[in-house]
Amino acid sequence: MKSPTKTLQNDLLIRALKRQPTERTPVWAMRQAGRYLPEYRQVRAAAGSFMDMATNPELACEVTLQPLRRFDLDAVIIFSDILTIPDAMGQGLHFVAGEGPKFEKKIETVADIAALPIPDPMDSLRYVMDAISLTAKTLGGKVPLLGFAGSPWTLATYMIEGGSSKTYARSKAFLLNQPQAAHQLLDKLAQATVAYLAAQIESGADAVQVFDSWGGVLSPAMYREFSLPYLRQIVAGLQQAGYADTPVILFSKGVHSTLADMAETGAHALGVDWTTDLSEARRLTGDKVALQGNLDPCVLYADDEVIRQEVKRVLDSYGEGSGHVFNLGHGMHPDMAPDKLGVMVDAVHELSQK
Amino acid sequence: MKSPTKTLQNDLLIRALKRQPTERTPVWAMRQAGRYLPEYRQVRAAAGSFMDMATNPELACEVTLQPLRRFDLDAVIIFSDILTIPDAMGQGLHFVAGEGPKFEKKIETVADIAALPIPDPMDSLRYVMDAISLTAKTLGGKVPLLGFAGSPWTLATYMIEGGSSKTYARSKAFLLNQPQAAHQLLDKLAQATVAYLAAQIESGADAVQVFDSWGGVLSPAMYREFSLPYLRQIVAGLQQAGYADTPVILFSKGVHSTLADMAETGAHALGVDWTTDLSEARRLTGDKVALQGNLDPCVLYADDEVIRQEVKRVLDSYGEGSGHVFNLGHGMHPDMAPDKLGVMVDAVHELSQK
Repeated sequence: MKSPTKTLQNDLLIRALKRQPTERTPVWAMRQAGRYLPEYRQVRAAAGSFMDMATNPELACEVTLQPLRRFDLDAVIIFSDILTIPDAMGQGLHFVAGEGPKFEKKIETVADIAALPIPDPMDSLRYVMDAISLTAKTLGGKVPLLGFAGSPWTLATYMIEGGSSKTYARSKAFLLNQPQAAHQLLDKLAQATVAYLAAQIESGADAVQVFDSWGGVLSPAMYREFSLPYLRQIVAGLQQAGYADTPVILFSKGVHSTLADMAETGAHALGVDWTTDLSEARRLTGDKVALQGNLDPCVLYADDEVIRQEVKRVLDSYGEGSGHVFNLGHGMHPDMAPDKLGVMVDAVHELSQK
Repeated sequence: MKSPTKTLQNDLLIRALKRQPTERTPVWAMRQAGRYLPEYRQVRAAAGSFMDMATNPELACEVTLQPLRRFDLDAVIIFSDILTIPDAMGQGLHFVAGEGPKFEKKIETVADIAALPIPDPMDSLRYVMDAISLTAKTLGGKVPLLGFAGSPWTLATYMIEGGSSKTYARSKAFLLNQPQAAHQLLDKLAQATVAYLAAQIESGADAVQVFDSWGGVLSPAMYREFSLPYLRQIVAGLQQAGYADTPVILFSKGVHSTLADMAETGAHALGVDWTTDLSEARRLTGDKVALQGNLDPCVLYADDEVIRQEVKRVLDSYGEGSGHVFNLGHGMHPDMAPDKLGVMVDAVHELSQK
C-alpha cells in the first residue's frame, strides 16, 4: 500500500487522468527525454552504452529532468526502457547500433517459458527504483513523475523474435500455433509487470503508463485474446495491491477497433495515436476514461504557426469537459528541433486556458 | 471508350466487385507474383535488375501467370510497380538492394512540380501496356486480369522523400508547410493516374486497384485533405472517360476512421487491412461498396488447420450477401512457404461454397 500522497505543486496531469476539472490542459511528450536534445546526447556519449545510462540512477535522473529545464511540461517520465523486464528475466538485452534492441536468447518452447523467473523488482530491477526515488526526490513535487512498463504482448514480440521485427511473423505464428504456451508467457509477463509497476509507485511514481507499442499489429480478434486480457490483469493487479488511486494509462499504438474494450479494463486513461480523432475516441469510449494524445509527431517538423493550428485542432477535437492530457500520438524523433516541442507545449497551455 | 467486354471463363471477381451474387467467394492475394515463389526468383535472377524484369513484357507476363499455375486463384494482377508513374515523370527510379526504391531527384519546390510532365501512357509507360496486352492474350479470359497504380499521396511520399521512409517527416512537413504546392503535385499525379489506368483497361485489364499504401500514416483530417480527394478524382476521371463499368478497388492500408468517406468516392470496392473486422467495415460503409480482404498475412506462417480456421473467421466476419473478395490484408512476404497460399485459396473456396 502506497504511503500518503506527497504534495504536488502542479497536479494537472493527475487531475486530468481522474477526469477532474483543470484550469488548462496538461501536456507532456512521449520520448521527451531523448536523442533530439543535445544535452541528452552529451550524457549518452559520456555514459558508454544505452544500458550503461539506463542502469545508472544519477544519469537516468539527469536525462529525465532535462526536458523540464527547457519546456513548461506538466509531467516527466522516468528515463528507462520497456525491455527491462525481459532483461531481468535473463534474456540478455543489448543494443546494436542502427539495429535497435536484441536479445541473446529467444523464446521458442514451453520449456523456455517455464524456465523464466518472475523478477523481484527490488533485486534485478533495483536500478529503476533507485532512478525513480532519486528523480522524485530531486523533483520535489514540481510536476508528477510517470513510471512505465511495456505491455505483455509487446514484450513477448521482442522475446520471441529476439529483437525488433517488421512483420512480427514469428510472434504471430507462436500465438496461432501455440496459444497455450503464449498465454503462459503473457501471464508471466503480466505478473512481473504488476510487481514492477507497484514497486515504481512505491518508489515515487505518481502515475504509470503501459506501452502496448505493437498492439496495433494484431487483428481485433487476436488483440482481444492476446493483449487486452493482460492489460486488464495489470490494472486489476495494481488495484488489488492497493494502488487503485494511482492513475494507469494504457497506450496501444495503432489500435482503434478495440478502444471501447480498452475503456472497460479499469484503466484511468487511454493513449490514442493520431489516426483516430479524439472526438471519435471519446464517442467510442463513452467518456469512461480520460484520453491522452494525439498530435502527429511529424507536425513538429512544420512551421511554428502550423504547429499552433494543429494543436488547436487536437484541443477542439477533444472538445469541452475534463479528461484530456495533451501528448503526441507517438514519441519524439531524434532529428527533431528541440524548440518545436516548446512551441507545442506553449500552444497547448495558451489555447486551452479556461 | 473500352471495346466490348471479352468473355471471362471465371468472372467471380468482377461479379463480387459489382456486388452481384457469386456461387463462392473469389480470392487472390496481393503480391501473389513475388519473391516467395522459387520460379519468380529464377526469372528475377536471370533478368538482371527489378526494373529490367518489370520493363520486359514477356518476363512481366511470365511472373504474372506463375501463381495461377500453382493455385486455384480467381484473378491475377499484372506484375509491375507502383512507382512507374514518377519514373516516367523523369524522377529516376532505381532499386538499391536491401534499401528498397530510390529516386535520383527529390521534389522540393513549386518549380520542381511545375516541371513534371504528365506522361503519355502509350509512350513512356508503353512497357506496362505491352505486358498487360500480352498477359490478357495469354490468359485468354481464364480469370480476370487486374491492373493497378499507386495513389497520388503514396507516390508523392516517395517523390518528396527520395525513396522509402519510416516517419514520412519530409512528406508531411511538405503538406503542412506548402499545402498549395502539395495540391498541385497531387493533382498532377491524379491526372497521370487516370490516363495510366484508362490505358491499362484499354490494354486488357478487367479491373484496377489503387494502392494507397501510406494512406494510414495520415491523421483523418490530413487524409481527407491530401489523399481522399485524389482517389475521388481518379474514380471520377475513369467514369468520365467511359470506363464506369470497369471495377475500381481502393486500398488505403491502415485507414479505418475514413472508410465511410472512401465508400462515397464512387469506387466499386474498398480493400481493408486486418486491423478492422469486415463486419465493422461493412457497417461503416453501409453496404455501398464491395469489400476486399482481410486475412493477416502472418496467418500464412501458421499451421494449415489454423489457416483454415482464420479463413473461416474472415468469411464469417463478412457474413451473408454478395460483395466480398477474399484477400490478405497486405502483400505476401518473401519468406512465406508457397504451399500456405494454396491452403488459404482452397479453404476460401471450400468454406464459402453456396
